[in-house]
Amino acid sequence: MDKNAIPKATLGRLPKYLQYLKNLSEDSPDTISAAALARGLSLGEVQVRKDLASVSGGGRPKVGYIKSELIQEIEDRLGCNSLTPAVLVGAGKLGRALLDYNGFEEYGVRIVAAFDCNDKLVRKEGGDSKDILPVSEIYDFCRDNSIRLGIITVGEGSAQSVCDMLVKSGIDAIWNFAPCRLVVPEGVLLKQENLALSLAYLNNQLHQ
Amino acid sequence: MDKNAIPKATLGRLPKYLQYLKNLSEDSPDTISAAALARGLSLGEVQVRKDLASVSGGGRPKVGYIKSELIQEIEDRLGCNSLTPAVLVGAGKLGRALLDYNGFEEYGVRIVAAFDCNDKLVRKEGGDSKDILPVSEIYDFCRDNSIRLGIITVGEGSAQSVCDMLVKSGIDAIWNFAPCRLVVPEGVLLKQENLALSLAYLNNQLHQ
Repeated sequence: MDKNAIPKATLGRLPKYLQYLKNLSEDSPDTISAAALARGLSLGEVQVRKDLASVSGGGRPKVGYIKSELIQEIEDRLGCNSLTPAVLVGAGKLGRALLDYNGFEEYGVRIVAAFDCNDKLVRKEGGDSKDILPVSEIYDFCRDNSIRLGIITVGEGSAQSVCDMLVKSGIDAIWNFAPCRLVVPEGVLLKQENLALSLAYLNNQLHQ
Repeated sequence: MDKNAIPKATLGRLPKYLQYLKNLSEDSPDTISAAALARGLSLGEVQVRKDLASVSGGGRPKVGYIKSELIQEIEDRLGCNSLTPAVLVGAGKLGRALLDYNGFEEYGVRIVAAFDCNDKLVRKEGGDSKDILPVSEIYDFCRDNSIRLGIITVGEGSAQSVCDMLVKSGIDAIWNFAPCRLVVPEGVLLKQENLALSLAYLNNQLHQ
């Protein structure tokens, strides 16, 4: 199966399937049908079949899916069993909001540290809080911890230099919140987040 | 022209066209061709023609677009000349990050105030900062200021009650950052933002 083939919408539903399957009682049968999953999650049965086909080859007519196998397959696909460590650069309000958000882990990513050039924001061993380290430590940290994923939440003015720094530190996937287009070497994945655009789209629909 | 028809990607490029057109020198000709715009913005000419067709009927063969008209048409479509006022509920880190972000205005939306149930976060007439008001004032504020757009940045637990409050206050478009599905009455627009999903998608591509 081509791992490329999983649509974003399907990916978004996978944590829901996982949660539902894990919450089924111990006494429930070892297998579950697509129809039962669809009912339980208020989804269309066709959609459930399509979603599960993208993670599992195991659905059998009249039997359904073996629950334990399906859980394993979804977890594997989401990367839950091997969290990808990520770093974040720019510990302003947005940066710290992302740093404190725990919802990324159910999608297989853990932000392990943030970096900022403002010494006042630097904090280490902050108990429950994640470390915010000086920007000068990015390179060593990423190399030492085999970090491949970087999140940019600095302003437009310094986004490209931060991006270059991350690439030099071995990072090959970047999620950019700065409102500017970044240049990355071939082979480095770049996802541009434009929050204003979502709002613009909603506004546009409102005034149609 | 059906206002519905404008694709999100086109909408995302409109501010760039606008900025480019406005930055052309006073001495430049009154008209501009799609080819010149495409060169100036490093976009494909076919894409530029398609984008502009969604906002303007005015491109003429061998002449191009009348600059002043095109600027007006793009501004109208983006709603720049009549900013839609929006409110935000939940002035935590993410909420305040959105509140302080000025990039929404170029897409026709201005967040005019935030609300929070934590009295410690409430601030009024804070100079350059926007007001953060007690949640109890939502209803009157939205009614008095004809607010139609609401942004939810509270936690999962209170998102639905905040949503209900916004709907009661006359809001008919909601942008929800809380990681839960909201129920809204028919006729109310709802856009669910799932930041974790973007990261999951990037992570998925990284491990293909």
